[in-house]
Amino acid sequence: MENEETKTVPKSWAMVGGDGPRSYAQNSSYQRGVLDVVNELMNEGIKETLDFKSPCFDSSNVCTFRIADFGCSAGPNTFLAMEKIMEAVEQKYHAQLQNSPPLEFQVFFNDVTGNDFNTLFKTLPSYQKYFAAGVPGTFYDRLFPKSTLRLAYSSYSLHWLSKVPEEVVDTKSPAWNKGSIQCSGTAKEVAKAYSAQFKTDMDNFLNARAQEIIGGGLMVIIILSLPDGILMSQTGAGIFNDFFGYCLIEMAKLGVISEEKVDTFNLPLYYSSAKELEEIIKNHGHFCIERLNMLNHPMTKRKIDVQFHISQFRSIFQGLLEAHFGRDDVDKILEYLAKKLAENYDSVFNVAKHQHVEHFILLKRNIN
Amino acid sequence: MENEETKTVPKSWAMVGGDGPRSYAQNSSYQRGVLDVVNELMNEGIKETLDFKSPCFDSSNVCTFRIADFGCSAGPNTFLAMEKIMEAVEQKYHAQLQNSPPLEFQVFFNDVTGNDFNTLFKTLPSYQKYFAAGVPGTFYDRLFPKSTLRLAYSSYSLHWLSKVPEEVVDTKSPAWNKGSIQCSGTAKEVAKAYSAQFKTDMDNFLNARAQEIIGGGLMVIIILSLPDGILMSQTGAGIFNDFFGYCLIEMAKLGVISEEKVDTFNLPLYYSSAKELEEIIKNHGHFCIERLNMLNHPMTKRKIDVQFHISQFRSIFQGLLEAHFGRDDVDKILEYLAKKLAENYDSVFNVAKHQHVEHFILLKRNIN
Repeated sequence: MENEETKTVPKSWAMVGGDGPRSYAQNSSYQRGVLDVVNELMNEGIKETLDFKSPCFDSSNVCTFRIADFGCSAGPNTFLAMEKIMEAVEQKYHAQLQNSPPLEFQVFFNDVTGNDFNTLFKTLPSYQKYFAAGVPGTFYDRLFPKSTLRLAYSSYSLHWLSKVPEEVVDTKSPAWNKGSIQCSGTAKEVAKAYSAQFKTDMDNFLNARAQEIIGGGLMVIIILSLPDGILMSQTGAGIFNDFFGYCLIEMAKLGVISEEKVDTFNLPLYYSSAKELEEIIKNHGHFCIERLNMLNHPMTKRKIDVQFHISQFRSIFQGLLEAHFGRDDVDKILEYLAKKLAENYDSVFNVAKHQHVEHFILLKRNIN
Repeated sequence: MENEETKTVPKSWAMVGGDGPRSYAQNSSYQRGVLDVVNELMNEGIKETLDFKSPCFDSSNVCTFRIADFGCSAGPNTFLAMEKIMEAVEQKYHAQLQNSPPLEFQVFFNDVTGNDFNTLFKTLPSYQKYFAAGVPGTFYDRLFPKSTLRLAYSSYSLHWLSKVPEEVVDTKSPAWNKGSIQCSGTAKEVAKAYSAQFKTDMDNFLNARAQEIIGGGLMVIIILSLPDGILMSQTGAGIFNDFFGYCLIEMAKLGVISEEKVDTFNLPLYYSSAKELEEIIKNHGHFCIERLNMLNHPMTKRKIDVQFHISQFRSIFQGLLEAHFGRDDVDKILEYLAKKLAENYDSVFNVAKHQHVEHFILLKRNIN
């Protein structure tokens, strides 16, 4: 269990910390928007699939229930999600094991080492009904002892790759992503490289969790993804990313930022399809897919406010942009982007025929 | 398990965070000085008293070994201590259970919510052989699920009371600590109030740990204390505190800081005697005292450097002083103290006939 984080996930990829106006904590209402839909699915899923009488649960200390959120950021969404999970687990516990001693929950909040755990801890609900702990490190590696978690949760995190695939910034590779900063889906070799990186990362994630989650334990995954057959470049998010790429190229031409930096910049993001996800999980073999639902996010239909969009974008990407372009250039880049977005509002926000989706996945760790 | 921390332990009592020149991380060589002595005692104690074949250990997952450091601050001393503990535990494990699967360690770093966990996490040894987690909250309350720890450790933390006893700042109480900022031991009623607060806090600590530590599990305590029959005011530390109190009174007379603030300031520290500690632990009844050794700290005999002393003092007390006197006054207070210490070096540092001591205590959780 060597800590390889510095090699694979730079610390700077954490969301913006603190609770100021630029923080992730103040700019994560989009991510929260999906919680109501998810809560119902989780509640139903836990009720139907969690089994306190399963052999592994029974042989361990039945009253201690450990949950981990992989990629929690600095709150507050994670607190709401954890509370809903505990409610559902407690209901199932009392339904199955009447007259048993009360459950004790231990909740582990995981994110990369650069995450703002100080803010996370300071904003923990003051009357929390659980024992809280923070766990620093990349979730593409082991983070917990064997068979100690009963429920794992990961929301809006697994579309972050551990790194940009090397080929896409290699000018000599057929997968060189010339003139683009994302996996738009149109260049086949680029898409292949991104997809391979996603598979490697997901396999690492599933391998680690398969060891940490007790047989019969559950895993809830909420992941940004694409409807089957739709390319990233056809979605609102993909069009926005392409536009951001054009802005960077323009800025390089104007001599405001380095051309070489723009050429070597790619987003370490991959939106998979449900089919791709299903295949990876099935091939992995340690988890059974109990639910796989496509969610319709309530906010994808709303009119977008440029300032809101930039705030949200900054809270997520500031660390990544700083690591690549340097601290001084990030403000310039975001100012330029805001100006250009205002000028080109319709061609960025009103042309997409498709939108990305979220998938809700409920997995159960096989007993073996 | 309501989080009562805000009521009992203000967040500001954490050591100074970060790793700058004023941080606890850069000013804790005194606390580290005792580690060599302690390591040998721990090593021997673990070897002789830890029993992997005890009934409670056997019935739980034998390969997962959970350790917690209560009052870890932001490192690096805690990392060294945890490593030494794991070495000793592993040796005992292999000696008792040959051919067993390797142990997996989960190490929990606990301190108050205001502690700088971000720095702690960033300075974790990069090739750590354990799964690390941070646990925010006061250790005078429950922090872990029942029977989940196998070894607890607390070093230089339990002399911090959860609060200053109310009577000592109550002008109408016979325990009013007029003209003093510490429990010097000379005023009987003051000493009684401090001692009662210490007993309450220790009982709360032992109650919480008794629930969290598995039967047969160990607890190592390193605590600042007094040799039997010696008063705080007779020791170097007590003389220093009294001198600090005089400086505060002088500053109030000069109108530099508020007189009322000085009158209501008392240090939330209590140095107990071995006899007192023994009595509290025995009366509590859930732990057996396996070792109780007085340590001779190698640094108490060194010539004291004023600047070193002020740096160390600041790294520990800055948060507490800021909370009481306000941020602006702390620099003034420490500057004044440094100046006065230089002027009165001999009468502060060279008159003490006695010194405080450290006690090393090894406890074993009863099986019941």
